[in-house]
Amino acid sequence: MVEDKENVANGEQVSKKGAKKQAKAAKKAEQKAENASAAAANNAGGDSAEDHAAGRYGLSEMIQSKDKRSERNFVPVHELSGQVGKADLVWVRGRVHTSRAKGKQCFLILRQQSSTVQCILAVGDVISKQMVKFAGNIPKESIIDIQAKPVAVSSKIESCTEQSLELCVEQIFVISQAKAQLPLQIEDASRPENADDVDGLNIRVNQDTRLDNRVLDLRTPANQAIFRLEAGVCRLFRDILTDQGFTEIHTPKIISAASEGGANVFTVSYFKDSAYLAQSPQLYKQMAIAADFDKVYTVGAVFRAEDSNTHRHLTEFVGLDLEMAFKYHYHEVLHTIGNTFTAIFKGLRDKYAREIESVGQQYKVDAFKFLEPPLILQFAEGVAMLREAGVETGDEEDLSTPNEKLLGRLVKAKYDTDFYILDKFPLAIRPFYTMPDPNNPVYSNSYDMFMRGEEILSGAQRIHDPEYLMERAKHHGIDTSKIAAYIESFRYGCPPHAGGGIGMERVVMLYLGLDNIRKTSMFPRDPKRLTP
Amino acid sequence: MVEDKENVANGEQVSKKGAKKQAKAAKKAEQKAENASAAAANNAGGDSAEDHAAGRYGLSEMIQSKDKRSERNFVPVHELSGQVGKADLVWVRGRVHTSRAKGKQCFLILRQQSSTVQCILAVGDVISKQMVKFAGNIPKESIIDIQAKPVAVSSKIESCTEQSLELCVEQIFVISQAKAQLPLQIEDASRPENADDVDGLNIRVNQDTRLDNRVLDLRTPANQAIFRLEAGVCRLFRDILTDQGFTEIHTPKIISAASEGGANVFTVSYFKDSAYLAQSPQLYKQMAIAADFDKVYTVGAVFRAEDSNTHRHLTEFVGLDLEMAFKYHYHEVLHTIGNTFTAIFKGLRDKYAREIESVGQQYKVDAFKFLEPPLILQFAEGVAMLREAGVETGDEEDLSTPNEKLLGRLVKAKYDTDFYILDKFPLAIRPFYTMPDPNNPVYSNSYDMFMRGEEILSGAQRIHDPEYLMERAKHHGIDTSKIAAYIESFRYGCPPHAGGGIGMERVVMLYLGLDNIRKTSMFPRDPKRLTP
Repeated sequence: MVEDKENVANGEQVSKKGAKKQAKAAKKAEQKAENASAAAANNAGGDSAEDHAAGRYGLSEMIQSKDKRSERNFVPVHELSGQVGKADLVWVRGRVHTSRAKGKQCFLILRQQSSTVQCILAVGDVISKQMVKFAGNIPKESIIDIQAKPVAVSSKIESCTEQSLELCVEQIFVISQAKAQLPLQIEDASRPENADDVDGLNIRVNQDTRLDNRVLDLRTPANQAIFRLEAGVCRLFRDILTDQGFTEIHTPKIISAASEGGANVFTVSYFKDSAYLAQSPQLYKQMAIAADFDKVYTVGAVFRAEDSNTHRHLTEFVGLDLEMAFKYHYHEVLHTIGNTFTAIFKGLRDKYAREIESVGQQYKVDAFKFLEPPLILQFAEGVAMLREAGVETGDEEDLSTPNEKLLGRLVKAKYDTDFYILDKFPLAIRPFYTMPDPNNPVYSNSYDMFMRGEEILSGAQRIHDPEYLMERAKHHGIDTSKIAAYIESFRYGCPPHAGGGIGMERVVMLYLGLDNIRKTSMFPRDPKRLTP
Repeated sequence: MVEDKENVANGEQVSKKGAKKQAKAAKKAEQKAENASAAAANNAGGDSAEDHAAGRYGLSEMIQSKDKRSERNFVPVHELSGQVGKADLVWVRGRVHTSRAKGKQCFLILRQQSSTVQCILAVGDVISKQMVKFAGNIPKESIIDIQAKPVAVSSKIESCTEQSLELCVEQIFVISQAKAQLPLQIEDASRPENADDVDGLNIRVNQDTRLDNRVLDLRTPANQAIFRLEAGVCRLFRDILTDQGFTEIHTPKIISAASEGGANVFTVSYFKDSAYLAQSPQLYKQMAIAADFDKVYTVGAVFRAEDSNTHRHLTEFVGLDLEMAFKYHYHEVLHTIGNTFTAIFKGLRDKYAREIESVGQQYKVDAFKFLEPPLILQFAEGVAMLREAGVETGDEEDLSTPNEKLLGRLVKAKYDTDFYILDKFPLAIRPFYTMPDPNNPVYSNSYDMFMRGEEILSGAQRIHDPEYLMERAKHHGIDTSKIAAYIESFRYGCPPHAGGGIGMERVVMLYLGLDNIRKTSMFPRDPKRLTP
């Protein structure tokens, strides 16, 4: 794969105006927190004569598992609608999403993962002035326990996911208090990408700020959805393959020799020696095939010491790798992989509709289109399509990133699919262990698979004959003494086999139509980022 | 955990007598291979006037996916019994397990993963003398295609898993020929540990020979079963937790600061800087909790640069880690973990009976016993049991490995369980981030879990309050400036949480009652082994 070095798109920068607003908000928040603590301190005695709500609010002592208090039976926010009219009072634990006291009332939005519900405190028989003030001063993102009555509302509450009810609070306690000054606001980090900027104050949060404060950033509804969907991709991948008789294996990450040549490999100090971090589990997958495991897959960390600062490169990512013995033709494997993708796309569409919608509320996402069975094109056909579109490209030339993307658009226009397979890559541009095409010496039994015009899998039939492997290695000018162990593993009988490796974060990024792989890696690693 | 350094038990050594026998066998095999090649060469023309079986046997050309030959419909060995009396001729692909030509007959055992079937070639209308000779000379472990008629036999074939039938071969082709001289014999590597050594020739294969030639070693029925069961452990762990609302996450392996102090950590060159390999995903699991994922697990590589050459230490292993927010008491988490183990044990017992039996045919395995719900003892109770057995141990002293094992035996004798939980470890011997017991300053809200008297999980309630965490870190003499980022992640509101980490290879080793963790790591890494 020829890769253009693109610059990292860091997302939108915070405007100067925005920064000022943030600073002001932070100062205000600091003040609020002090007030909250003061209110709680006033309440410490809990028997203040002036406060008839004493004991109904305050800062809880740290939960240290002192006793198994069972009197608080918590209801999840998304189940509250079932409690309206039924339950008198319920307990809910969640975060303060926003809180605003005005006169004798406090409106608070409580958030639990992606669900939000409006809470109201109004001075009266149960609630005191002090309690309203306390509630209004709890810093955003603090975790609180409330006891409240769920009440139906007549007009929809547009700002919450629970739109048909609100909670009339009778008790409120802070379980874990957040710092008053947050490095980013969840509201800002959740703002739709293309929201109208009517008052010029629609602050966005830039990518580095997000990643530096990932614990906060991950709390946005879109991020909650992205990483749940990502877990779904892994689960689907494993379940689909297990159902077809694949065995999961685990391959070592610390290896004694660089698996794919010496370039782009991280070095590790290993006691008195040096070792490397595996750039792929390929050799080990192949050994598992030679060891009679027949069909194997592995999900695990893969390392690339490549100084590529692009929207789609990471130095550490999760590989979804598989390898499979076949009887006569590597298309047995190619079809298995293609159908696995189809099953993953169907599984995501059917089981993760809510997550896809959540992501769509922040990022513009076109539904992912695929054909069943998947479209398979020959590399030569792809080249012909590019030439028809006016691109000059050689028969044995690899696809450049722009050509890869252009071909994706041409395929989409012609076949209406965001996923396709390109088969029979030129032999000259594939690694030495790739099986040449026996019917045409220019090509090889190898394939790439694409989502929205970007490569997400590279695979091939591997040479399983040790003598032929030696011959091909020599042809590539490789010092065969350095890969003796690799070649040796085929000397004890090995079935013909093929496989491929998938970048998990890329699959999620491209399925959702996101613009940067850092959005789909929980704690991304690139040449410039090693934290958090 | 105080760990005695034990020596690696390398398994049995090959006796001198055995070595001689091996060398002799190897020479014979070399001869056989030459004969096979010669026979095939003779047969190359395929139209020799003297050979009426010409074209029915030989070396196949390398399978290079030339065409999609569909005429060979293969039947798996374990499905052959269903074909007796039904099918006239079937195709089977498998390995030559043994082959012996004697006069006009050749007996060959064909192996497919853990299944074996007897094949017979007898000179007659279909088979020629040359074909019998060819079959008798195919090197062990070669992959062959045979076409044969499945025939019922009157007396059980004890040496094969398919005992009620044999295959009368009509065609035989070598698909991938093994080297004649194998570094180990599958028969030797499969021999039961405690088989009677009647003729003094029961060769065993020592562990280093096995690991050096892992591709061969993994072909034994016991190893085929061990790694299928290991895949089952991971699958059960994930499915059980997913069903309870856990989300799978992926945590970085390359980190900028040592996660559990600076000791025993591997250093990586990271572009112009240095980085480390994560010794546990703990910080990242905790960050995921602080980021509202509520219940998370992760399965992935964990690295320990510990120069421990024992039966139960690896420098790289697979961690099954989980972390979970709770409402009031860390026992909510402790019970979740305990019940997860119970569900894993039941799943293995019910779904992997065949694999457990396979392992039992080579290694003596007592069935794994467990209670439902699991037994929970207080650390102090464990100490009392040890003292009752005459062991002197302090109240705040950690369990030494011998004491840990003794306690396992005492628990087994008293409660008849191979699994139990020890709760409330002394605070003094746990890391700084462990939540102290609020009811007794000597203890902490932490626990270990044991299988057959060896620790397989260590876990605790973590301190989620940043100020208290600072205080405890200072108490431990830790430079808090170095863990500022860790502490910072609790400043934006974090629910109380607890979790634990499980060593996957240990679970499999101890469940099966095996004696060395290298038996349950497909490609083990220890201070002295980095290959294959």
